[in-house]
Amino acid sequence: MQDQYVPEVAQLKTCEEKVAWARAQRDAGLNKVEPKLQGIPDELPKSSQGLPKTVLTAREIEITENYSVTQLLDVLKERKISVEEVTRAFLRRAALAQAAASSASICPHAGKGMELTTNCVTHLLWDEAIARAKYLDSLPEPEGMLFGLPISTKEHHGMRGDNVTTNASLVAWIGKKHGSNLLYDSLWDQGCVFYVRTTQPQTIMHLETVSVVYGRTVNPYNRDLSPGGSSGGESALIGMRGSLLGVGGDIGGSVRCPAAHVGIYAFKPTLKRISVMGARGLMIGKEAITSTPGPMTVDRDALELFMKAALESKPWLTDPSLTFKPWTPFRFIQQLKVAIMWWDGVVKPHPPMTRALKEVAEACKKAGMEVVDWDAESLHHETSWELLTQLYWPDGGEEALGLMEEGGESVLPLSKFILQEHPQIKNLSQHELWEVCRRRDEYRAEYARAWTNTKGEDGREVDVIICPPSFGAAPPHDQSRYWGYTSHWNLLDYPGAIFPVTTVSPEKDPVETGYVPKNEEDRFVYEMYNPEKYKDMPVTLQIIGRRSHDEKVLAALKEIELAMGRDSGSRVEDPVHIIAKN
Amino acid sequence: MQDQYVPEVAQLKTCEEKVAWARAQRDAGLNKVEPKLQGIPDELPKSSQGLPKTVLTAREIEITENYSVTQLLDVLKERKISVEEVTRAFLRRAALAQAAASSASICPHAGKGMELTTNCVTHLLWDEAIARAKYLDSLPEPEGMLFGLPISTKEHHGMRGDNVTTNASLVAWIGKKHGSNLLYDSLWDQGCVFYVRTTQPQTIMHLETVSVVYGRTVNPYNRDLSPGGSSGGESALIGMRGSLLGVGGDIGGSVRCPAAHVGIYAFKPTLKRISVMGARGLMIGKEAITSTPGPMTVDRDALELFMKAALESKPWLTDPSLTFKPWTPFRFIQQLKVAIMWWDGVVKPHPPMTRALKEVAEACKKAGMEVVDWDAESLHHETSWELLTQLYWPDGGEEALGLMEEGGESVLPLSKFILQEHPQIKNLSQHELWEVCRRRDEYRAEYARAWTNTKGEDGREVDVIICPPSFGAAPPHDQSRYWGYTSHWNLLDYPGAIFPVTTVSPEKDPVETGYVPKNEEDRFVYEMYNPEKYKDMPVTLQIIGRRSHDEKVLAALKEIELAMGRDSGSRVEDPVHIIAKN
Repeated sequence: MQDQYVPEVAQLKTCEEKVAWARAQRDAGLNKVEPKLQGIPDELPKSSQGLPKTVLTAREIEITENYSVTQLLDVLKERKISVEEVTRAFLRRAALAQAAASSASICPHAGKGMELTTNCVTHLLWDEAIARAKYLDSLPEPEGMLFGLPISTKEHHGMRGDNVTTNASLVAWIGKKHGSNLLYDSLWDQGCVFYVRTTQPQTIMHLETVSVVYGRTVNPYNRDLSPGGSSGGESALIGMRGSLLGVGGDIGGSVRCPAAHVGIYAFKPTLKRISVMGARGLMIGKEAITSTPGPMTVDRDALELFMKAALESKPWLTDPSLTFKPWTPFRFIQQLKVAIMWWDGVVKPHPPMTRALKEVAEACKKAGMEVVDWDAESLHHETSWELLTQLYWPDGGEEALGLMEEGGESVLPLSKFILQEHPQIKNLSQHELWEVCRRRDEYRAEYARAWTNTKGEDGREVDVIICPPSFGAAPPHDQSRYWGYTSHWNLLDYPGAIFPVTTVSPEKDPVETGYVPKNEEDRFVYEMYNPEKYKDMPVTLQIIGRRSHDEKVLAALKEIELAMGRDSGSRVEDPVHIIAKN
Repeated sequence: MQDQYVPEVAQLKTCEEKVAWARAQRDAGLNKVEPKLQGIPDELPKSSQGLPKTVLTAREIEITENYSVTQLLDVLKERKISVEEVTRAFLRRAALAQAAASSASICPHAGKGMELTTNCVTHLLWDEAIARAKYLDSLPEPEGMLFGLPISTKEHHGMRGDNVTTNASLVAWIGKKHGSNLLYDSLWDQGCVFYVRTTQPQTIMHLETVSVVYGRTVNPYNRDLSPGGSSGGESALIGMRGSLLGVGGDIGGSVRCPAAHVGIYAFKPTLKRISVMGARGLMIGKEAITSTPGPMTVDRDALELFMKAALESKPWLTDPSLTFKPWTPFRFIQQLKVAIMWWDGVVKPHPPMTRALKEVAEACKKAGMEVVDWDAESLHHETSWELLTQLYWPDGGEEALGLMEEGGESVLPLSKFILQEHPQIKNLSQHELWEVCRRRDEYRAEYARAWTNTKGEDGREVDVIICPPSFGAAPPHDQSRYWGYTSHWNLLDYPGAIFPVTTVSPEKDPVETGYVPKNEEDRFVYEMYNPEKYKDMPVTLQIIGRRSHDEKVLAALKEIELAMGRDSGSRVEDPVHIIAKN
């Protein structure tokens, strides 16, 4: 069943025909939106943040903006609002994230991406979501810790349902049948509503979101900039509050980078906490480096809620590769010891990122935390990238390139970059791969020693590292070529959380003139910066813990936000711009 | 350093010269034994069990036989006996396990194996152990949960010390320098004494123990039978009570099979509880299936003690691949639900094994446990062997065969069997291996579903499976060609414990006449049985738990032994024959 195509697609020959079918399938869902979206401007503004207020009803704005995830769950549980009303509001807001300028064309959703609000949707599950909402409303008592919550999902993970197809943004897989996965079944069992599936890039291996199938997804704060990737459909959607909680996947930054680029929260757990069983992807069976799903959300508290909900059903009994451990909240009994990683020793972050680090470090100190520096330079972060490129593609990219050829699609620039522009990428023999794995393990041990060696005279080691999630705010399209600030933690399998800190300010964040780049990558990134280009874009930071210390990372996030003066994980002071103003 | 050879070996050219060097190194340790062993008979008896009483002093017999591990630790902690006296007693008893018949030759340790008591020793660490013992005796207070306990170790794991070499029973690696490993450092930190290193087979991948380097290790109960493998040096030694607690390693049964063949206790934990970091082995960096160290011991309680001691130092902070979990003892709050696996659907166990299962099942029922059958036939255990052979040798055996060629040594029959006689073994491409891994994961999920489906109306699933650890008691040499009863649980990564049950009785265990073998392997095993051949040999069983349920398996072992009328895990009623008489 999983290896079959829907009959109508099996007939199609060309790439163009298949792409048209995929987009028509998407549009069929969008065209069900009722009432139709009205008031889209002739020409789309650079930022999509103002659109909801001109297109959605006041009630829809209230439902989608006035509640945090936990607050919305509360009113749903109390049945103050019906699941159906909530679901319809988010369906309409998600459709808005995909809406075309009214000048675009007679077929409003056929654009190549740039003419759409953010172009983040692959499937709008109108009928399915409303049916689910009605069912939940019909229950005598609300059931499950996600009762009635609309959750958005990354397309390649699959979806519950009888007629589901999943293409993972590969033309060759358009129309390929594919069912649910263990994680989504777990969330479903907790009462959620699935209502929209979102874009990912070709190969699912860009920190950017562009594919032949769906075109380019753009940042909801600035369409000239990237929403990040590979879960960039989620970030674009959640960045427009078209979803409060979505599911991405992360093997090199694919949950954290897009979250960072739209200023929301995200969490990449340690591998094997959350199952990937049932998701569609490349190189199934490869073990050298693997991905993990993770939550992306507007609220801090929703990260832990997601983890609890995902683990509530004891998924390790179904996917025996998982760690046998329920979610076990961590509480600090003394002030944190945090390390600030100002840069990774390879690429200097842009000025707003450095300012964000300073602001947070200062807040931590004021709150009484011990704040030390993390010396990444002595830890040779460049090693991890060299190892990762081989671990990502131990077949030299054979499967990915073969599928692109099979689909008749062109190899996009960032696919070329990640697949073909690294000299060490080749079809490895078993022995060659084992040698890379041996070096990986050695590097992991070296890093663990460095962490242990942070123990001071009081025997206390660093609790978490605070570091940039990227070299800067969301970059222009096709410029995401330096993964080190996220992928490094994938190599180490350390959990990482993203949280919003500030926005880019041309006044506060001028170009660092006179800086002499350390290497070619550093130069490329340095020359990319110009504060006007990134004005008002969200700036986030990342909190990293030792492997398996997932609960500790989320506890540290809370402590650090408290130090920043955020007393609640469910803030809705400024629902669209959730960025702190400090 | 690790890749260098000691200078004197670097000069040697032939296989014979190198083997002579390795054996001379071994004998140098044995020749230090003081007082010399006296009273070895002209011709070695079939069973070595009577030898200690004729060779060792009454005091040595008392020290090595009158205490369980925990009892010995108690008297050491109370300083009723010095660590040095205990160490010397075990050094002498270990040397006896390696002693030659007095008729053998003028060089008492140069035999090919069969002329030696069991031929289980690769290094007797006379000086090092006595120095360590003296140091421990000099401490003002006993320190560590293993204070003063002599622990024997499998050679290829390595050893602490400045001039250590480790050959892993490969001629090519004779004289190769190799230091300690994380596990042994952890045990050391708990105060143990390392005093003897033991044999493993060529490739470390036989359920048997024979190599060109050290010859053949024989069963201490019957020299015509195998001590099992690959940790057969440990089983031979512990089966003679030349050690009370040793460390083996298990990737297909290598801890459990040898323990089973000499009637002792053993435990194979879930992977990644105990570190393999620092051990010498083939195919370092391979991940598709890996090995775990595990304890082999004369006492049930020592299994849990070993796990606690190994995890006490939080090894996951040093080897970050490990599971972040201290040893967390499990206690049953209601009677167990156990499943009996009478056979694996491929090879019928020999009659004594079936009788052992009946006896234990009966005891469990009498104790009030719920006892059900485990339907292995419907779970296609033959699949796991097909997958395993490819996961063991995804390079087609290239590295192992290359090393044997480099060393100039012949490929022994069981190496040929495991490396070359399976048509599916070949040098796999990355994609071919991923497909095997995918099927492995699918099979693991299928098995997990079957386990979950044992839930009865009360919602209680099976706690543990009780099954044979082998098709029968210790087989004749070179006949261990069916691994399914142990290797199956390696494929699934389920923890397994071995415990002694009975001995082979020609009266109780006649040949099952008229049995029609189901396949060629079944026929091979069926025709191997003849009760006289195995008379009085130990028969053990295996307790299997779901992945990661390590603590539960050891808790179940205790409950099951209590049901069998064994009220203590530290029995010394009959120290040599620890087999229950029930």
